[in-house]
Amino acid sequence: MLQQLFTPTVQHVLDLIGIFVFAISGALLAVRKNFDVFGIAVLAEVTALGGGLLRDLVIGAVPPAAFTDLGYFLTPLLAAALVFFLHPEVERIQTGVNVFDAAGLGLFCVAGTTKAYEYGLSLTSSAVLGLATAVGGGVLRDVLANDVPSLVRWDRDLYAVPAIVGSTMVVLCIHYDALNPLTTALAALSAFVLRLLAMRYHWRAPRAWNRRSTVAEEQTP
Amino acid sequence: MLQQLFTPTVQHVLDLIGIFVFAISGALLAVRKNFDVFGIAVLAEVTALGGGLLRDLVIGAVPPAAFTDLGYFLTPLLAAALVFFLHPEVERIQTGVNVFDAAGLGLFCVAGTTKAYEYGLSLTSSAVLGLATAVGGGVLRDVLANDVPSLVRWDRDLYAVPAIVGSTMVVLCIHYDALNPLTTALAALSAFVLRLLAMRYHWRAPRAWNRRSTVAEEQTP
Amino acid sequence: MLQQLFTPTVQHVLDLIGIFVFAISGALLAVRKNFDVFGIAVLAEVTALGGGLLRDLVIGAVPPAAFTDLGYFLTPLLAAALVFFLHPEVERIQTGVNVFDAAGLGLFCVAGTTKAYEYGLSLTSSAVLGLATAVGGGVLRDVLANDVPSLVRWDRDLYAVPAIVGSTMVVLCIHYDALNPLTTALAALSAFVLRLLAMRYHWRAPRAWNRRSTVAEEQTP
Repeated sequence: MLQQLFTPTVQHVLDLIGIFVFAISGALLAVRKNFDVFGIAVLAEVTALGGGLLRDLVIGAVPPAAFTDLGYFLTPLLAAALVFFLHPEVERIQTGVNVFDAAGLGLFCVAGTTKAYEYGLSLTSSAVLGLATAVGGGVLRDVLANDVPSLVRWDRDLYAVPAIVGSTMVVLCIHYDALNPLTTALAALSAFVLRLLAMRYHWRAPRAWNRRSTVAEEQTP
Repeated sequence: MLQQLFTPTVQHVLDLIGIFVFAISGALLAVRKNFDVFGIAVLAEVTALGGGLLRDLVIGAVPPAAFTDLGYFLTPLLAAALVFFLHPEVERIQTGVNVFDAAGLGLFCVAGTTKAYEYGLSLTSSAVLGLATAVGGGVLRDVLANDVPSLVRWDRDLYAVPAIVGSTMVVLCIHYDALNPLTTALAALSAFVLRLLAMRYHWRAPRAWNRRSTVAEEQTP
Repeated sequence: MLQQLFTPTVQHVLDLIGIFVFAISGALLAVRKNFDVFGIAVLAEVTALGGGLLRDLVIGAVPPAAFTDLGYFLTPLLAAALVFFLHPEVERIQTGVNVFDAAGLGLFCVAGTTKAYEYGLSLTSSAVLGLATAVGGGVLRDVLANDVPSLVRWDRDLYAVPAIVGSTMVVLCIHYDALNPLTTALAALSAFVLRLLAMRYHWRAPRAWNRRSTVAEEQTP
């Protein structure tokens, strides 16, 4: 068991912030997809809580935090209501989705890695589950919106790498016994900034080598 | 623990009816989607058992009822066989999907809420999980059929509200110690009738305020 | 509890082979879909580990093997790297996806059924969960790639039947106390060969009887 990183209140507030920003990203995608108010609420909840729910099921933390902490459930509804009434012009939505999503990515890869380690997973598995916590909600969001998940598309800026960096920083800190509020915040911030830079400069991951006649192939799925 | 609402046999029969009608809805969608006989069986099983499976994983009731009660597994196969051999003309299918789905919605939001509360969740969480039980199978059905889930589409009649009403009635009855077979049946019936009315009069949920240039936005996903 | 079928090392190697071939199939689909290197890794991991993860959550074996055995996590990455650097010409990919997938299908339906039975499920439930283990990863792969799962498409060669045969052979062997390395291998091989034959001769499952005006129906989803 790790010693408590932050006071419970600080930890809880950070969790709620991560949930809130992911929920905003889900709700904004729902608006762009032309969903109704329930679709907005559902995508907000799923994006915000999906990754953590997956993590809690995997580590056996049932019932998951999403169902035991009323704040976890209500925060996405608040985000959905804000987006419903106050969302910016549709033209500017995509940027908003991405920036909020980047903030959630940073917070969740750190929180997911830490919780997985507390439940006894190895350092590598904890980092992987932290990554899954961070990207899981977004993947579920895209699946429900019937999109190919941004996570796997080559024409999307780097998304997994920032979360991998954040998760890896956390497990390195654990390994070297250097996990404290400062290093934790640094890991989350690194993931957030890396993701913003990836979006700003359109960093992309390579596709498979030796590809050819892709277009023809795509036409005959 | 709630006192047993119904005799075990009655409870079990109600569960099987809910499973059966949801399975019919899944199998009919599979026919409309032109799936083969295994696709029909898979969609019947997933639609019927998916919501309850999700609920059981969340509350830690493993192995889930879907895998311990042979009747739960065989009932969707029966529904799939009926649809396979006897389904009505394709033109009339959509109505059938919707009416059966409404009946399942009513039964499952009540059963899901009750079981979640029995496993120690709070009243609010129980209602949310009851809602998830009721709509989860349909969402999985639509995801497997590669559709945007009906649940989130603005051009679909109200679906979540009837389930929310049913779940809320159950937790209010629990709170005021008034849960009995009659009030339980009333909650399920309310959800069912509300859903039928929503379909009959095309009640729809609003989309986000201040939307504009939606069509142009939709063209550039 | 079954007596140990194979020495732990043999069992582990078979598991890793099944994981490897499924991962190859996922990675090749990712290449065909034009995903980037992370998309290739994600689809390799999900295809290889998704079915087993689902099985472990259902039987309550948490944390699932996918998160406790480092080899299970690293093997799909190796497969993804191989596909990334060395994949054959794109024109030949589809055959590769299918043959590797068939091998994984055979190994996983057997391993899934055996493990489910060891965790106390009934013979029927074990066979069903073995089938779900075998096809689950492929369904998740197709959902993430935004395809209708091959499993349910009528224009795909038989996929579920070989896995059902393999799972059924295992539970029959258990029932008649005849489960040993030879019969286990035979069950896996039967599923593999059946799947190859289904692909070679384009065996397909029937669609619903009395269908009509399907084409018109398909146009108005």
